[in-house]
Amino acid sequence: MATDIFDTRESQVRSYCMNWPATFAKASGPYQWTEDGTRYLDFFSGAGALNYGHNHPELRDLVVDYVANDGVTHSMDMKTPAKRRFLETFERVILEPRNMDYKVMFPGPTGTNTVEAALKLARKVTGRQHILSFTNAFHGMTLGALSVTGNSMKRRGAGIPLTNSSKIPYDDYFDGDMPDFLWLEKILEDSGSGVDKPAAVIVETVQGEGGLNAARMDWLKSLADLLRRHKILLIVDDVQAGCGRTGKFFSFEEAGLYPDIVCVSKSISGYGLAMALTLFKPELDVWEGGEHNGTFRGNNLAFITAARALELFWADDSFQNQLAERITELNEGLKRIAEHVPGSSIRGRGFLTGIHFPNPDTAGKVAAEAYKRNLLVETSGPQDEVVKLMPALNIESEDLQKGLAIIEESLLAATGNLGEPSRLRAPR
Amino acid sequence: MATDIFDTRESQVRSYCMNWPATFAKASGPYQWTEDGTRYLDFFSGAGALNYGHNHPELRDLVVDYVANDGVTHSMDMKTPAKRRFLETFERVILEPRNMDYKVMFPGPTGTNTVEAALKLARKVTGRQHILSFTNAFHGMTLGALSVTGNSMKRRGAGIPLTNSSKIPYDDYFDGDMPDFLWLEKILEDSGSGVDKPAAVIVETVQGEGGLNAARMDWLKSLADLLRRHKILLIVDDVQAGCGRTGKFFSFEEAGLYPDIVCVSKSISGYGLAMALTLFKPELDVWEGGEHNGTFRGNNLAFITAARALELFWADDSFQNQLAERITELNEGLKRIAEHVPGSSIRGRGFLTGIHFPNPDTAGKVAAEAYKRNLLVETSGPQDEVVKLMPALNIESEDLQKGLAIIEESLLAATGNLGEPSRLRAPR
Amino acid sequence: MATDIFDTRESQVRSYCMNWPATFAKASGPYQWTEDGTRYLDFFSGAGALNYGHNHPELRDLVVDYVANDGVTHSMDMKTPAKRRFLETFERVILEPRNMDYKVMFPGPTGTNTVEAALKLARKVTGRQHILSFTNAFHGMTLGALSVTGNSMKRRGAGIPLTNSSKIPYDDYFDGDMPDFLWLEKILEDSGSGVDKPAAVIVETVQGEGGLNAARMDWLKSLADLLRRHKILLIVDDVQAGCGRTGKFFSFEEAGLYPDIVCVSKSISGYGLAMALTLFKPELDVWEGGEHNGTFRGNNLAFITAARALELFWADDSFQNQLAERITELNEGLKRIAEHVPGSSIRGRGFLTGIHFPNPDTAGKVAAEAYKRNLLVETSGPQDEVVKLMPALNIESEDLQKGLAIIEESLLAATGNLGEPSRLRAPR
Amino acid sequence: MATDIFDTRESQVRSYCMNWPATFAKASGPYQWTEDGTRYLDFFSGAGALNYGHNHPELRDLVVDYVANDGVTHSMDMKTPAKRRFLETFERVILEPRNMDYKVMFPGPTGTNTVEAALKLARKVTGRQHILSFTNAFHGMTLGALSVTGNSMKRRGAGIPLTNSSKIPYDDYFDGDMPDFLWLEKILEDSGSGVDKPAAVIVETVQGEGGLNAARMDWLKSLADLLRRHKILLIVDDVQAGCGRTGKFFSFEEAGLYPDIVCVSKSISGYGLAMALTLFKPELDVWEGGEHNGTFRGNNLAFITAARALELFWADDSFQNQLAERITELNEGLKRIAEHVPGSSIRGRGFLTGIHFPNPDTAGKVAAEAYKRNLLVETSGPQDEVVKLMPALNIESEDLQKGLAIIEESLLAATGNLGEPSRLRAPR
Repeated sequence: MATDIFDTRESQVRSYCMNWPATFAKASGPYQWTEDGTRYLDFFSGAGALNYGHNHPELRDLVVDYVANDGVTHSMDMKTPAKRRFLETFERVILEPRNMDYKVMFPGPTGTNTVEAALKLARKVTGRQHILSFTNAFHGMTLGALSVTGNSMKRRGAGIPLTNSSKIPYDDYFDGDMPDFLWLEKILEDSGSGVDKPAAVIVETVQGEGGLNAARMDWLKSLADLLRRHKILLIVDDVQAGCGRTGKFFSFEEAGLYPDIVCVSKSISGYGLAMALTLFKPELDVWEGGEHNGTFRGNNLAFITAARALELFWADDSFQNQLAERITELNEGLKRIAEHVPGSSIRGRGFLTGIHFPNPDTAGKVAAEAYKRNLLVETSGPQDEVVKLMPALNIESEDLQKGLAIIEESLLAATGNLGEPSRLRAPR
Repeated sequence: MATDIFDTRESQVRSYCMNWPATFAKASGPYQWTEDGTRYLDFFSGAGALNYGHNHPELRDLVVDYVANDGVTHSMDMKTPAKRRFLETFERVILEPRNMDYKVMFPGPTGTNTVEAALKLARKVTGRQHILSFTNAFHGMTLGALSVTGNSMKRRGAGIPLTNSSKIPYDDYFDGDMPDFLWLEKILEDSGSGVDKPAAVIVETVQGEGGLNAARMDWLKSLADLLRRHKILLIVDDVQAGCGRTGKFFSFEEAGLYPDIVCVSKSISGYGLAMALTLFKPELDVWEGGEHNGTFRGNNLAFITAARALELFWADDSFQNQLAERITELNEGLKRIAEHVPGSSIRGRGFLTGIHFPNPDTAGKVAAEAYKRNLLVETSGPQDEVVKLMPALNIESEDLQKGLAIIEESLLAATGNLGEPSRLRAPR
Repeated sequence: MATDIFDTRESQVRSYCMNWPATFAKASGPYQWTEDGTRYLDFFSGAGALNYGHNHPELRDLVVDYVANDGVTHSMDMKTPAKRRFLETFERVILEPRNMDYKVMFPGPTGTNTVEAALKLARKVTGRQHILSFTNAFHGMTLGALSVTGNSMKRRGAGIPLTNSSKIPYDDYFDGDMPDFLWLEKILEDSGSGVDKPAAVIVETVQGEGGLNAARMDWLKSLADLLRRHKILLIVDDVQAGCGRTGKFFSFEEAGLYPDIVCVSKSISGYGLAMALTLFKPELDVWEGGEHNGTFRGNNLAFITAARALELFWADDSFQNQLAERITELNEGLKRIAEHVPGSSIRGRGFLTGIHFPNPDTAGKVAAEAYKRNLLVETSGPQDEVVKLMPALNIESEDLQKGLAIIEESLLAATGNLGEPSRLRAPR
Repeated sequence: MATDIFDTRESQVRSYCMNWPATFAKASGPYQWTEDGTRYLDFFSGAGALNYGHNHPELRDLVVDYVANDGVTHSMDMKTPAKRRFLETFERVILEPRNMDYKVMFPGPTGTNTVEAALKLARKVTGRQHILSFTNAFHGMTLGALSVTGNSMKRRGAGIPLTNSSKIPYDDYFDGDMPDFLWLEKILEDSGSGVDKPAAVIVETVQGEGGLNAARMDWLKSLADLLRRHKILLIVDDVQAGCGRTGKFFSFEEAGLYPDIVCVSKSISGYGLAMALTLFKPELDVWEGGEHNGTFRGNNLAFITAARALELFWADDSFQNQLAERITELNEGLKRIAEHVPGSSIRGRGFLTGIHFPNPDTAGKVAAEAYKRNLLVETSGPQDEVVKLMPALNIESEDLQKGLAIIEESLLAATGNLGEPSRLRAPR
């Protein structure tokens, strides 16, 4: 449209709407509808902020009820029943069963804010200033979080040198050509290395933005052990990989980790509402009152949906068990699809997964073809060389298969392959 | 309560709930009710995020309706009708009548995020790295915003040196002992000053956190002229002072300014929902797609309340005219109250105002006494030496007088003054 | 010369030889001779490294003797009789008579190195990271010293942001429009100023490179008092103003200061040899062995000339008394010269002095005309707007008058003034 | 001595004199004599500043003559015949025969100063701010040079975070467990690595302070190729390894390198006088006049000795050939000595060499025993675990053997080994 207000008035900093120009009006579960009623299957899920799909009915009804009854909406760090309910539920459903005695901080309602809080706290507790982060990490867009992020375009956006941080190689960064932690161990043990002893290492168990690199559980465990020996704090940024995205509530559970600090955001509200947590061991709670604050820490709509989502999905194992089945299904589907392109490989873990193609252009073409077929699926990696799937965790098998079929079709269209993708094709 | 989950589970970083330990369950207009039904008059207004009071009924009904009908809740930077409506309304109601042709960026939903985006953009556009900010400025808690903030306790929280910024004296920092801009002009004109030529100066027209210092309109105008002559960008951080808080939609309108970049957040949604804007002149829109992003940029609940709030309050002058009357009323009340304490003075502008007391302890005592009398009012300033009033802009006169009466009572109680504050006393 | 090796082989970073293209072969006292025997009167004195003139005969003979007899030339920080003699003489002639119990550090043989050592030590002792320095300061060209330097061209040379330092206004920076220390006091007392509490303030008593701004003794004393009250270290950079240049051995003696750290270099050897000292109060001597080092700390030729120069010039008052007379003479001459140009003024102190002209081009023209008349005199200030005189401290009255006469002639030639400068003219 | 002025007056920052408490009065060739006439054989050579031994007679006589005849001693960047002679000789003897068309900059007379100049220039030329340096690098003690240095004790001395630099592994840092340049290549090729594209890489061909790690010629060549492909400047810090220390004038000649920038200092004067050069390709000469300067750039005593030393030692191959023989001799001696301690290994290259012992305490004990036997030899490495030999390059075979014999004796004494070191024992 010639007079599209989005184009005339919004900044050119936008990205998703450039690839997906439709205007989405309604949403439910794994689907969104445009204004004219066209339905899209959503394998993007708000970049991982909609793990239970759009507008889950039970959460929706809670919001409607809460708002209609003038529940407190905005409360800074003041006490509300909604916040109490969230804290109690989080303690009972998440922390206690996992033997995690962690303090909960509401650091401001976004992922970058919980990372900033984590970095501040690590520096304050240790009195050290350096932070180590990993190649291809993504931790956020404010200056502190950006300094531990890998992407060069986003780093340049800072306009100033990003300091007080060094990069270390993520799991399998060298395709097996180098033993794990060789570099990190040397840095820490060699007083002449020139890499200053860090306050903390910040890690994603799966690098969602950085190309769906998934660390092995053993690697994570060894990392934690190494840091403990050197009295360096371990921060896990579970903003995207947490809240069930990899199969368990925390992405590091499988590795048996107890990180010193955990960053949570995106899907914690369960409803796509802005909310974030910084969790840390009680002995690290050295904050002064108000030393880190923010206006939107008290999002009560998010508190009520978050509490209910925890009860709905995490109070017992049934959701995780069902999710485990879907993960298997998704993996099998991806493997079949990947067979069409020699040299491609499956990346990621759980429902944070995708296909890496040898030709960096393939993924973008697949996503574009998928969009034509009414599927939202994004790309990832330094060259956008990975098709990245993040379906809702509670997606039905039929919808999952439908999406996989579209991806297969899209891949064939994108690569000019005329082969018959019959096994995966789902009814439209 | 011995087993208060807030105390056992939340981090000690909290501040407001320490002074106001009640649990607030319901809210409407200028009032909040605790779980047991006690009513509090709210002169805090979510630190300025609730300029139209709590849960404005028209906005509330819109939210209920939107949520109940499965409108898209979370949309990143994708197009939705709710976002379109906001953009159109903002253009029609705010930008066009003010002859402001500004690009709109959604930088992430918090004040600190719009400041980080503004600083990045200023550095990218100019190719310079230094930023000047003012004594007692407050711009946010992430590393970039913190580097231009004044408060030493919050700065220390960074745990690393805050760099690439210098401080300059705010209006009347020297109580008239120094001509305006003497230091700034010398810095800019003297190639030997050692203060590197900045990309931008960032300013609040009223320093809400820094002690309610209000810049004079002439001072702001001179600042803008000075920067224009030196080709330095002017960023106005209108996060707290904007959205009508000082009497006009933007706090800089009265000065006739057209800042290069404007930071908006807090009350822009009108309903206490997380939302922020970065506005800038079209020629500054040099962003690459995705160079600054964030998960919660597409808060559609906020878009619909924001659009409606603009229509309700800013489509014509009636609200501003009524607000002007209230401002007069508030000022007169404060003046009367201040007379009780020799040496005290009125600070701030519009509905971002308060009383500075010569004894730095007075303000805290007044706020504590007011809380006992069921009024929420906070303190401000480097030593918390100012009682800071931020009533809802649409407060009824009766409620305003009631709050003023409580403050007067509280001041008398706090200072041991037995005088009769009869004129202001309102019915309880 | 077409094949001048200086032009073909040396970098264009050179500056002095561009204005003074002669090749100087011999030197003695206040004179230098070119290869073809032309004599130049030297009012530049190696930028202050030749306070006793070129090649003082007694020092020269000591060097010849020492070298001829295979005295140790280079000794790192090892013990030599030459170093012992220097330390004993410095203690006896300089420190003890002034009641200065200071530790002596040899930090590397240049001015920038003693400044770097001073900044490191101040940060280590206080645990603070910020340093305050003054507008138009010059402290050196390595990264730490450059960060506290004012000149914008030299700062840009760093190629990276210069951090961990803020600038404060030097004495009379505002021509009396602002009370002394108003800004500094506010910065230190206001916890919201945003200027982090510094480890130290570094100051030159006369800003030699920055335009010959001379601080008043009262201002220096007040600065020292203010810093003591705030437990901030005072570093005096006496690299150019020290070693007698202002009339006493240290430039701060007259003010009765006992700085925490003193930087000395340039003329300390007395013979133009590379040598530097960092002096500090004993309780500040918290260095680890080797924490700051350098290859050329043990310049024994410099040690022997330095020790002898101290004995020759500073063992009693006769040299200072004679110097005081010359200073008067120089001042009177400058006043007379300055009368030729309305609006010009005398700058500096002692034998670190000159004339500031209202037209920034005048000084450069005067220096060029003086060079034509076989006088070396340089310019100073952010716009090179000051003619800067640094004659040898032991210059004879006749030579001083001769130089002054040349300057007057040069000024008249530079300004097209045909007036008769007869009073000052000296025989050629 | 109870009243030793060195102990009472000098700062505790000293290091060498703590291990070698003798007072050295005279020196000639490879020997120094204490005040009471005890002779020490010097295998330390002023940390590499005395490559031609102490007080070479021809250079000594030149100094005596020059000083006695009032040659200009100190000349900033002005032209002198001594400087011309140096430039012409350097061009004729060093640059032209090596086909090196390099600009010569005199950046201040110390190693750290030439490094600071090199870093500035690399940043200015490329417009990039990041610098890569190697594990266990040593480049100097001023802030810029320190930021690219590895040693943690020296880095902490900065008192502030050292920024704008990352560390990469030096040759064989992983004992062969990782392919060469795997990390560096990935950093440069992966736009998501998070290591910002550097202006330059700075390297020592032999890490003199960092433990005598010697890079292989192939590794250096591959490094240069890799950087050229990525348009990143290569800076070789030849301060210690240059001026013949490894067998050729430049330590990188053997590798066939033409670095973009070369740092030279220490032995360039040939006489232990303070002098430094920064050499760079002509197209990099983008300095503004005076953008980097310094008082002691014009050390004419150093110019005359430097020019003569070049003629004496480098005008033809005879010196290098003789040195090659000595290197062989030294290596053979070290190998024999190392056989006494299983697990020890020879480190370094040329006359910058030594023995690494498996027990980190051994080297210090050997050096202490050697000092008792009147041999000066130091240790190196992050744990001082390497005995480091830097004899004068023109040492006679007999003196070399004598020193080796002492080291062998010292090793046996240090390790309690009673074996007979007869083959190496030299007459005392």
